[in-house]
Amino acid sequence: MKAVGVIVEYNPLHNGHLYHIQKAKELTNADIVIAVMSGPFLQRGEPAVVSKWHRAAMALEHGIDLIIELPYMFAVQHAEIFAYGAVTLLDSLRCDYICFGSESGNIQLFNDAYSLLEDNKLNYNQAVKAFMEEGNSYPKSASLAFLQLSKGKTAMLDLSKPNNMLGFQYIKAAHLNKLAVKLVTIARKDANYHDTDFSSETIASATSIRKKLFDAEDGREAIKPYIPAYTNTLLQSFQMEYGRYMQWENYWPYLKFRLLQASAAELSGIYEVEEGLEHRLLAKADKADSLHHFLTLVKTKRYTWTRLQRICTHILTNTKKTDIKKMSEPTYIRLLGSTKTGRLYLKEKKKTFSLPVISKLSSFHNEQIDLDIKAAAIYSLGAPLSFQQNLAKLEYSQPPIMK
Amino acid sequence: MKAVGVIVEYNPLHNGHLYHIQKAKELTNADIVIAVMSGPFLQRGEPAVVSKWHRAAMALEHGIDLIIELPYMFAVQHAEIFAYGAVTLLDSLRCDYICFGSESGNIQLFNDAYSLLEDNKLNYNQAVKAFMEEGNSYPKSASLAFLQLSKGKTAMLDLSKPNNMLGFQYIKAAHLNKLAVKLVTIARKDANYHDTDFSSETIASATSIRKKLFDAEDGREAIKPYIPAYTNTLLQSFQMEYGRYMQWENYWPYLKFRLLQASAAELSGIYEVEEGLEHRLLAKADKADSLHHFLTLVKTKRYTWTRLQRICTHILTNTKKTDIKKMSEPTYIRLLGSTKTGRLYLKEKKKTFSLPVISKLSSFHNEQIDLDIKAAAIYSLGAPLSFQQNLAKLEYSQPPIMK
Repeated sequence: MKAVGVIVEYNPLHNGHLYHIQKAKELTNADIVIAVMSGPFLQRGEPAVVSKWHRAAMALEHGIDLIIELPYMFAVQHAEIFAYGAVTLLDSLRCDYICFGSESGNIQLFNDAYSLLEDNKLNYNQAVKAFMEEGNSYPKSASLAFLQLSKGKTAMLDLSKPNNMLGFQYIKAAHLNKLAVKLVTIARKDANYHDTDFSSETIASATSIRKKLFDAEDGREAIKPYIPAYTNTLLQSFQMEYGRYMQWENYWPYLKFRLLQASAAELSGIYEVEEGLEHRLLAKADKADSLHHFLTLVKTKRYTWTRLQRICTHILTNTKKTDIKKMSEPTYIRLLGSTKTGRLYLKEKKKTFSLPVISKLSSFHNEQIDLDIKAAAIYSLGAPLSFQQNLAKLEYSQPPIMK
Repeated sequence: MKAVGVIVEYNPLHNGHLYHIQKAKELTNADIVIAVMSGPFLQRGEPAVVSKWHRAAMALEHGIDLIIELPYMFAVQHAEIFAYGAVTLLDSLRCDYICFGSESGNIQLFNDAYSLLEDNKLNYNQAVKAFMEEGNSYPKSASLAFLQLSKGKTAMLDLSKPNNMLGFQYIKAAHLNKLAVKLVTIARKDANYHDTDFSSETIASATSIRKKLFDAEDGREAIKPYIPAYTNTLLQSFQMEYGRYMQWENYWPYLKFRLLQASAAELSGIYEVEEGLEHRLLAKADKADSLHHFLTLVKTKRYTWTRLQRICTHILTNTKKTDIKKMSEPTYIRLLGSTKTGRLYLKEKKKTFSLPVISKLSSFHNEQIDLDIKAAAIYSLGAPLSFQQNLAKLEYSQPPIMK
């Protein structure tokens, strides 16, 4: 059986994702699609709107055959570590391909970009450093340095586009770690792209879908054109069972509390808190009345909004530099769900996997999975008080979803 | 001017307190009454129903002339340290007397008890240790050891009564530190005591008053017989301005969050967390849906409910063993309010005080007062989200109340 892997968050799963799954299969002639999906907290340092189980169920309904969790220690990370975790996990599952969406849609440009940077590593790193010293964020500095390096070339990858940058990191992870998995890319759909099934009337970004879901008077009604009916059903059942959708503001009281009680020394031990940022965080905590307000007060050119949100997530989960330091590579494949085809694949290939497959939490224990368990516990606190225990219990009681 | 000191919490101020103030003055012929009052968190490890400013205003209306804050590091403590902080502060204010309420009402019995223990220190300490090794709590062991020691004496202090035990600690603190202040006691009023003004129809304990306030359909109406009208007025204005009264359950979500995210090592650094209690706290946190439920799960014979509540308060305020170790004695007199007579006293005696008087937070800075400031910030989180900032601001913006 031939497998193609996809790296996803499905927050929530929408029509654009259906296009991605369909194209990934077409492009690679794969028999099955395997997804590695972030758990309760996402790459931008945000809680997922609904639980990973609900998002896994959405995926299994729409063409994903096997879905596994990207551990917290890779999920809530900048592009390089995120990509490394996701790509090596898919490789450990013996995927033949990984298909990612990008603004470019041209895999050759990614490979060229990788070669160019490898051949000019020293120059490139110096240029990144120089841009950062001017006060730019890392992603901005990296794309500026690449622009400088590729001056004069006719076709080049635009690394200022977020999905190109992420895709570039996938390529890099595969090359550097000499993985067997092959990478392919498709151009992402956006509102300008016209197609009978996937038009601007049916495709919207997850960000704009979440915004409508939270802000519109009847959020679920407003997003209906952009999501499959089953996504709508699962959004509704999550909201009914756990009291509300999750968003950062649900957690703001906890973050504020922690910032009011923590010492500067404790905060400086939190992963990604660098360069004395702890003092800035402590100084602004009692002045803000929401996370958005807080980040507005803390924000500088040096720190992207996303990085600050990730830092806030690490403060919430109390993830320390020493926690991350002890771990470096994925150590398990945590199964969230499978279709019949997915289970056939497992049966056929499981013995060749380089990591153990975890279907039951009690059967496995290490520090990396402890972090996932803690993240799920903290995630449950975003529900109203009387719903928290039920949401928290899912982590232990929910077996992988069988479809 | 002759001054008598009283050690209070006024949570809230009730008719029994009026009796205490009146008798303290009569018994000592004092010109003014000085109160040292716990701040936002109390000796039993609970948040005060209303802010220290509201409680200070109640006091000034009813016969207290000067009111100062007992720092957090003495306020949220077992009897011995609580007593030491309160008594030395009143002595530093040059009080001639301290008048405390006790079940006994006979100061000679307190002095006898102190002498008896001093003369038999070794025996006593060994007996306390033996009772603790049988699994009893410290207060229980202390009163059992004292009972053993005083066997055969005709009149003796009953140290199993909480206010006798506290009074005994006041006496001990004054003796051990050779303080000039003289201690006197009055018998506490209880529901059995009959008196025209102070009868069982008008006197109830603060505990039963709080219970009525929280549980009765119209709480403020239900407690009217037991409190002065002005207490009622201030309870109402606090509730209107800050959204609700404070009680432990308002803080339970924060405590639970902290227990879900903290490491065992971090918890074991918290003041009063001893003997591996951190593991017990961590194991029960996700099983409880209220503080009361949580403490029921954690409680053993070894730990009093009060001690566990204090530990939970220290976890909330993140007060560490190392924080308390660095401090040992009161370092400032933080003024919460005064009457005209109180200000006359300050004018006359301030120069003789052994500690600086703080009227403005910005004029003084040390680690002990930092703990008070943090406690006030954490206390404000008990209010509904939209009221928290106003409540937190009081700590800096409220000058001492002038009556």
